[in-house]
Amino acid sequence: MKSKKRGRQTFVFDEPPVIASRAAVVGPKEGEGPWREDFDLVLPDYNFGEETWEKAETKMLEQAVRLALEKKQLTPAEIEILLAGDLLNQIISSNFAARQLAIPFLGIYGACSSMAESLLLGTILIDGGFCERVAAGVCSHHYTAQRQYRYPVEQGVQFPAYSQWTATAAGAVVLEKGGESSGIRPRITAATVGHVVDMGQDDPANMGAAMAPAAVDTILTHLADLGRTPADYDLILTGDLGRLGNTIACRLLEQAGIMPPEYFTDCGIQLYAASQADIHAGGSGCGCSAAVLCGPLLNQMEQGRYRRVLFIPTGALMSPLTGFQGETIPGIAHAVTIEML
Amino acid sequence: MKSKKRGRQTFVFDEPPVIASRAAVVGPKEGEGPWREDFDLVLPDYNFGEETWEKAETKMLEQAVRLALEKKQLTPAEIEILLAGDLLNQIISSNFAARQLAIPFLGIYGACSSMAESLLLGTILIDGGFCERVAAGVCSHHYTAQRQYRYPVEQGVQFPAYSQWTATAAGAVVLEKGGESSGIRPRITAATVGHVVDMGQDDPANMGAAMAPAAVDTILTHLADLGRTPADYDLILTGDLGRLGNTIACRLLEQAGIMPPEYFTDCGIQLYAASQADIHAGGSGCGCSAAVLCGPLLNQMEQGRYRRVLFIPTGALMSPLTGFQGETIPGIAHAVTIEML
Repeated sequence: MKSKKRGRQTFVFDEPPVIASRAAVVGPKEGEGPWREDFDLVLPDYNFGEETWEKAETKMLEQAVRLALEKKQLTPAEIEILLAGDLLNQIISSNFAARQLAIPFLGIYGACSSMAESLLLGTILIDGGFCERVAAGVCSHHYTAQRQYRYPVEQGVQFPAYSQWTATAAGAVVLEKGGESSGIRPRITAATVGHVVDMGQDDPANMGAAMAPAAVDTILTHLADLGRTPADYDLILTGDLGRLGNTIACRLLEQAGIMPPEYFTDCGIQLYAASQADIHAGGSGCGCSAAVLCGPLLNQMEQGRYRRVLFIPTGALMSPLTGFQGETIPGIAHAVTIEML
Repeated sequence: MKSKKRGRQTFVFDEPPVIASRAAVVGPKEGEGPWREDFDLVLPDYNFGEETWEKAETKMLEQAVRLALEKKQLTPAEIEILLAGDLLNQIISSNFAARQLAIPFLGIYGACSSMAESLLLGTILIDGGFCERVAAGVCSHHYTAQRQYRYPVEQGVQFPAYSQWTATAAGAVVLEKGGESSGIRPRITAATVGHVVDMGQDDPANMGAAMAPAAVDTILTHLADLGRTPADYDLILTGDLGRLGNTIACRLLEQAGIMPPEYFTDCGIQLYAASQADIHAGGSGCGCSAAVLCGPLLNQMEQGRYRRVLFIPTGALMSPLTGFQGETIPGIAHAVTIEML
């Protein structure tokens, strides 16, 4: 069998799986941003009819998977494996959504890089000949994340301008084996698995700075492994570095001899309008990159605006406890190439 | 390409990857059990030279991977991907071990089923032609788990007789592409991905009862998917059901028309001597099944005692918060067939 590995950390997929369907479910604030029409469901409030925010988050992920299935007239029983993750302790949102969906389940944890991890593992399951149809999804919820990672929102703590707003959003895709007859569709053609990078940043309000070195490491590895330059992509989109993290990533790319192109941007910058209150340096959370992917990004690819995109969700792998114990913040990023083919 | 899927949820591996090396690092209590000589490192205390139990747990996982590598004169740079998970919030033990090892990293979360999940994903990466050598490992630590999930140990809370003792243990394997010339070795020949099963159990001290239905569901699916019976195995070993969970699993198997054979047992029963204090119904934790696998189980397979084993780590997918919010406890189990071939 021909190896699917290129260079140190990159896989190429000879029969690239198709993103056959996708859906994004977002909260009120995300609906007030520039992409309202691109989302499948904009919630009127943060509870989604549930008693707790955590149950609302679970329901958002479940609903994103169900909406993605409905677009293709599929039932959960027709999905061979669900790959999902989220930010909550023990990834409870994903576990309980998987219970409701009753699809064979593999839970993942890569913090806000989880959408990339679920996409790349789903692609491997299909391209490796193990499955023909899988689902991959992630979610985050502003108020569950705030009370778990930071301060109860009722306390009214002020955050610095470089902090980011955890998105209330869930995104899910259906990946299918791509036959030659399936036409021009968004397909996953390559993926780079990142390693943990920790440059010693220890401010939990500044996730962008903690994750930027990992994003740049993965982008440089991806380009080197495939012998490509940024000019081979129409869009290079990190996950949730925000404005400060994006600035840092640009400088790190320059230091490595790569001029960051104008189409090097970040889902955390794109998800909200710059004029929206409290967003500070941009969006964050698993759902940030997932909602941009499953809403505006894939819509614009299908409309012909982008042909080949490098999508690099980024994760900060700390917990509140590691901070209390004096640890710095490790970052990770995985890259996925999505092409209209 | 020929499909590697059998039935609903099972994969078969035509060129089964080899468990080329493995190591188990355990705590003092695990060293006092029946398998002391089978473990690579028995810690004299619970701190392993670190200031906190959490840092000790990280170091145990890192050390298990390093010991597995050293046995084959490998360096971390020769491992293409590390798959790892643990029980702590945001799987910090795995994240920080991955930072120290600097191997491209995919974090997983399946609670105490994580050893199965990491093994099966590692096997898929190799059998699918993506990698030639990966590492998979998990860990748990009694004192980090107690303070996160239950009560601070200083409080001296008494537990019921059906509760289980979270193991202080880490296990790691190196999986390699298996050539015909590699001789008779332990190989992973099949795997069944479980789905979430929740029968309404809501007592967080009784994990065995919460997970037994998932274990039985996965075993029955595995046997049906492959057209096998328990007689096709020399040992059927669940992860951490403990004595009560094992009894429940036996009854559920009987109800399904399968007589549980005498070689149907559980790592939570096997890890400790029945006479050891405080163990109650048996061991639990990610590290329980991992240490049994990477210590006595693979040793006994290599000594010729077992030829084909079905290994079914089980996970309880709740968190303390889901309990507080009135949820029941969802269980999951994945099955991995290990054969001397």
